Amino acid sequence: MEIKITEKELKGTRPDDSSLGFGTIFTDHMFNMDYSPDKGWHNPRIEPFQNLSMSPATMTLHYGQSIFEGLKAYKNTNGEIQLFRARDNFIRFNRSAKGLCIPELDIDDAMEALKTLLRLEKDWIPETPGTSLYIRPTIIATDPFLGVRASHTYRFFIILSPVGAYYSGGFSPVKIWISKEHVRAVRGGVGEYKTAGNYAASLYASEKAKKEGYAQVLWLDGVELKYIEEVGAMNIFFVINDELATPSLNGSILPGITRDSVIKLGKKWGMKVSERKIAMDEVIEASKNGSLKEVFGSGTAAVISPVGEIRYGDEKIQIGDGKAGDIAVKFNSAITDIQYGKAEDSENWIEKV
Amino acid sequence: MEIKITEKELKGTRPDDSSLGFGTIFTDHMFNMDYSPDKGWHNPRIEPFQNLSMSPATMTLHYGQSIFEGLKAYKNTNGEIQLFRARDNFIRFNRSAKGLCIPELDIDDAMEALKTLLRLEKDWIPETPGTSLYIRPTIIATDPFLGVRASHTYRFFIILSPVGAYYSGGFSPVKIWISKEHVRAVRGGVGEYKTAGNYAASLYASEKAKKEGYAQVLWLDGVELKYIEEVGAMNIFFVINDELATPSLNGSILPGITRDSVIKLGKKWGMKVSERKIAMDEVIEASKNGSLKEVFGSGTAAVISPVGEIRYGDEKIQIGDGKAGDIAVKFNSAITDIQYGKAEDSENWIEKV
Ligand SMILES: Cc1ncc(COP(=O)(O)O)c(C=O)c1O
Ligand SMILES: Cc1ncc(COP(=O)(O)O)c(C=O)c1O
Repeated sequence: MEIKITEKELKGTRPDDSSLGFGTIFTDHMFNMDYSPDKGWHNPRIEPFQNLSMSPATMTLHYGQSIFEGLKAYKNTNGEIQLFRARDNFIRFNRSAKGLCIPELDIDDAMEALKTLLRLEKDWIPETPGTSLYIRPTIIATDPFLGVRASHTYRFFIILSPVGAYYSGGFSPVKIWISKEHVRAVRGGVGEYKTAGNYAASLYASEKAKKEGYAQVLWLDGVELKYIEEVGAMNIFFVINDELATPSLNGSILPGITRDSVIKLGKKWGMKVSERKIAMDEVIEASKNGSLKEVFGSGTAAVISPVGEIRYGDEKIQIGDGKAGDIAVKFNSAITDIQYGKAEDSENWIEKV
Repeated sequence: MEIKITEKELKGTRPDDSSLGFGTIFTDHMFNMDYSPDKGWHNPRIEPFQNLSMSPATMTLHYGQSIFEGLKAYKNTNGEIQLFRARDNFIRFNRSAKGLCIPELDIDDAMEALKTLLRLEKDWIPETPGTSLYIRPTIIATDPFLGVRASHTYRFFIILSPVGAYYSGGFSPVKIWISKEHVRAVRGGVGEYKTAGNYAASLYASEKAKKEGYAQVLWLDGVELKYIEEVGAMNIFFVINDELATPSLNGSILPGITRDSVIKLGKKWGMKVSERKIAMDEVIEASKNGSLKEVFGSGTAAVISPVGEIRYGDEKIQIGDGKAGDIAVKFNSAITDIQYGKAEDSENWIEKV
C-alpha cells in the first residue's frame, strides 16, 4: 500500500501534559481512505486534520452505519512509541465491519496506515506517566442516499488525540448504577460490535445515572434483566472468594481487549478465572455473605477501574473500604507497566512503531 | 421565529416525474437551525442545499446520537400543497429527541420552518398521481468530542427529495422474511424512537433477506423471539377472520403515523380493530386453518403494502392469491385519496401550505 502524505504547513504544538483532558484536542494530521464497489479500499492518504465535507443525506447520519475502535500509543522510558495489541483492535474492527455490512479492511494495511501516521505525529505523544495518544479508527457510510440499505461507499479515517492521565486524582473507586429498565443491547443485536448506535442507546440511562451521582451505568442482559453484562465503556470483573469472574461473551457484550488481557494474565498468575453468567442476585448475595471481595471495570481509557459502590434500585452495595482492591491494583500495574515498557512484554502484546 | 432566507442563484430543475426514484435527488434549498446550551435553538435559516462541514470527531459519527422523521408533501388536484399529519411527525420527532437526550423543538417553529421551505420549493413537488415530495427532518449531535455523553450542540436540518410513485408496477404484494435469530430492538431500548442506530442494527438481516429474494425483514420481539413487531420500515397488520390486528406499541416498535391512520379509519368503518400481542405461532395456525385473510404493512413510503408471503425458517406462508387483498386496497385508496385531496379530509389530517 502506497500512502500519499500531504503535510500541514503550519504545525500545531502539543499542549502541556498537565492540561490534557480526553478527546478534545487533535493532532495535525489524519489518515483517510475511501471505499467504492469498483475500486475497493483505495486512495490511502495522510492529510492535515480537517473537516469532512458531506451531503446532509449522507447515510451514516440517518442510519448510523458506522463503526470505530479505541486504542492508545504510549511512549516508553526510552522515548520509543509502543502500541498495545493494536492488531487485535483491527481484528475487532473487522468483526464490527462484518456485523454492520461494511467492507472489511486488510489488517496489514490498517496497521501500516496507523504506524505511518504515528511516525509523522510522534511529537504529539505525551510523555508524562499515565498520558498517551488516543487513537480513533472510524468507518462511516458515505452514500448520499435516503433509504435503508447498506451503503455502497465508505470513508475510513484515523484521528489522534493526546490524552491526560486518567487517575490524576489517584486510583480511587468509582460508583456505578444499574438500570432496572433500560437496555443497551440484546443477543441477536449489535451489542458485540463497536458501532455508533450502541452508544446512543446508552445515553438516556447514563444521564439518569449521572444525575444520581454515579459515573457509569452497569447494564443487565436485555432478555431477563437479570444477568450482568458490562459497564458503559468497560467490561466488568468480580472477585468472589478466590474466583475472578466476568460475564461471558454472549453476543451483546463488547469483547474488550483489556478484558482479554486481564483474563490471560489472571490465568497465567494461577488465578481461578471464569467467563460465565453472573446474576445480579448472586452479586447481592455475595456482598451480603462477605464473599464479594472486589469489583473492577476494564477498558482502554482507564485500564482498570475499581468499583466502590453498585446502586441497584434502592440498594447500595458497598465494595471494599473506599480504596482500590489489591487485585485491581495488581492488574492495573501489570498492564500499564507493559504498555509503558516498564515491564517485560512476556505476552507479546507490544508492537514498537 | 424569523427565518433568514438565502436563495440559490442558479436554480435546478425537477427531473421528469417518470424518472423519479427514491431518496437520490434533492431540491435547491434546505432548512438549518443550530442548538447550543446558551442560545437554545437559534439561527433558523433557509440556504442552498449544501454539504455539511464537520470535524471527523463530530459526535454523531461516533456515537450515533441522531434522529430523523419521514413524511411527504402532496400536490392536490387544484395544485395546492398538502401535508398529511405533519404535526404528528414533529410530535414523534420530539419523543425521539427526548429518548436520545436531544433538546426538543418548538413544534410551531418546526411547522413554520417546513412550510416556509415548501413554499420556496413548490415547483419541486411532482404532480403525477402517486408522486410526492419526501421530507426528511433530521437532528445530529455536533460537538467535536470523543467520549460517550450527550452532545452539547446540535444541528437540525430539513431536506426535501421528489419521489416517484411507489407502485409503478401495480399494487402487488411483497414477500417478507422473518429472522429467527437477529433482533432489531427490545423493550427498554430505543426501538420506539426514529434514531439512526435502529436502522444500522437492521442491515445484516436485511441483506440476508434480500439474498433469499425477500423485500424486507419481519422482526420478532427481542425477549422471546416469538411475537411479531414490525417490518423494516413499516408497521404490520393481520386480518384474522373479521379482526384487524396489529402489534401493540410495547416500546420497541415505531409508532407509525400510517399505522395510527389505519387504526382510526378501521374503527370508524366499524371494523374490529385490536392492538395486541400477535405470536408468530398464531399467524401460522391462522394460515393453516384458513382464518388468515390478509397481511399488509403500513408506512409513509408505500402507504399500504400488501404482503403475499411470509418466510419463517423453512416454512413459506402464502397469503391470498397473489393479488392485493380487498382490505389493503380499501385502506390504501382511502388514505391516498385524503393525501392527494381527492376525498374529504374527514379526520382533519391535512394541513395546506
Ligand atoms: C461498550 C464497551 N465495552 C467495553 C469496552 C472495553 O474494551 P477495550 O478493553 O477494548 O477498550 C469498551 C471500550 O472500548 C466499550 O465501549
Ligand atoms: C422502523 C419503522 N417502522 C414503521 C414505520 C412506519 O411509520 P410511518 O407510518 O410513520 O411512516 C417506519 C417508517 O417511517 C419505520 O422506519
